[in-house]
This record gives sequence, C-alpha cells and structure tokens, in this order.
Amino acid sequence: MTNRATDFLLDPRLAADTVTLGELPLCRVLMMNERRYPWLILVPRRAGLVELLDLEPDEARMLWEELHQSMAALRDLGTKINMGALGNMVRQLHIHVIARTEGDPAWPGPVWSHSPREPWPDPAESAETLRRRLKLPQCGI
Amino acid sequence: MTNRATDFLLDPRLAADTVTLGELPLCRVLMMNERRYPWLILVPRRAGLVELLDLEPDEARMLWEELHQSMAALRDLGTKINMGALGNMVRQLHIHVIARTEGDPAWPGPVWSHSPREPWPDPAESAETLRRRLKLPQCGI
Repeated sequence: MTNRATDFLLDPRLAADTVTLGELPLCRVLMMNERRYPWLILVPRRAGLVELLDLEPDEARMLWEELHQSMAALRDLGTKINMGALGNMVRQLHIHVIARTEGDPAWPGPVWSHSPREPWPDPAESAETLRRRLKLPQCGI
Repeated sequence: MTNRATDFLLDPRLAADTVTLGELPLCRVLMMNERRYPWLILVPRRAGLVELLDLEPDEARMLWEELHQSMAALRDLGTKINMGALGNMVRQLHIHVIARTEGDPAWPGPVWSHSPREPWPDPAESAETLRRRLKLPQCGI
C-alpha cells in the first residue's frame, strides 16, 4: 500500500535534467539546467500524483501559493511568465514556471520540445541565484 | 480610469479562434475551434490582466475552482490533461486546458505552435457537447 506522503520519489528523468533548489511546504523546487531560460519546476512531494485533479483541496491551495511565489521570483528575469503542467513524457505531476523574453530562442512558441537543452556552465551558481530569489535556504545547511 | 470588472473585452484573436461556451463565476469559457484536441480556454473577465500574478487572491481561488471543473470535464476525453498559461502571442490572461491522447498529432510535444489549426466541421455541435460536460447553460437561453 502506497503512502502518498512518505513514498515520494523524484522521477529520475526530472532529476537528470535539473538541480534541486530546495523544499517548499508541498513541493520540491527544481531548476531546469538550461541556460537560455530561467526555469523552475515544482514537484508536489506526494507519491502517485499524475494530474492536478489528483491533488487534495488543501494541497491545491498550497500548490497555488508556491506557484505564486515561484512566478514572483522569476517575474523580473523576463517579460512574460509561462506556466504549464503537461506530463506527456514524464507522468509524475510537475509544474513548469519559466521566465520568457521577447526574442528568446523559442519565442513566441513554447520552450517544451523546441530544441535540445543547453546546460549552464556552472549550474550551482545559477541555482544559488534562484534560491536567493525564492528565499530558500542553501541545500545542505 | 479602467474598471477591471466592467471594462473586460475579449481579445479579438481569442474570439476569432474559438467558440464561446458560456460564463463561470470568474471566467469566460471558450472552446478552441480545433477538431484534433478537446481544448478549453478560460479567460478571467477582468480588464488588464496579463499574468496569473495579477489576480487578486479571491480571483485566484475562483480560477483554481474553474480550472478544476474544466479539467474534470475533459478528463475522460483523453489520457492526459495539459494545462498552460503562456500569453506570448495574446497578452490577455488566458489559461488552456487540453485533453491529450497518446499518438495525437502533436504527441508527446505541446499543441501550441505545433501546426495550423484544423477547425471542426460543425463547431456548434462540438461546443454543445462540451457545454453539457461543463454543465453550462446553452448560450442565448
């Protein structure tokens, strides 16, 4: 029997593409390791979630607050925030928050499926910048 | 001085691509006139909104409820719900809710920017089906 709160494990494909920034009350916050767009991914720490409809009402409220915090943290890193929950490739529920800028490589289309990922030269440094914007404690401290 | 509640006007590009299904407490509900994907668009009826961050807290709660209702209405029309707020082309805040199915034309990529829209042969009939699923009254009655 799955315990949705304690049996959470991050999908290995999400883990491979991202750097963990830290934990909010509901979600693990990841930074996509992609230097062309400031890009956060929120993953509710509950086992077995696939759709937003799978969230309990109190979890949905927490998710909204954490999305709001994430969008606010990225707002002045671009000219338009894109938010999306797709999950066609990775089924584990995860929500993207991306700062877009007119003229960026995928503009005005979506970033998903646009082109291969271009990693940061120093992902840890970029992660620290975003962590400060999100007011998350440094990992491991 | 803009009155955000009374000065709402639907963006003409959204109007041109969609059929209006009806009104929820916060949002106008549109059906994208695209026969390949069951596709709803929610537009909060408030003038001047661009980002989800622009919503007042009570509006954000209403939006979440209406998104939940929309996702539930589409759930068994596909195998995965995609939800997104992009706004790179049309700045007026609008949120997409789309029922995706493995093997559909854009699968597993996003539908946005994938290929030109393919309209329904009879949009009014398709709209009526979605309106019933959403439990919205028929327009004009």
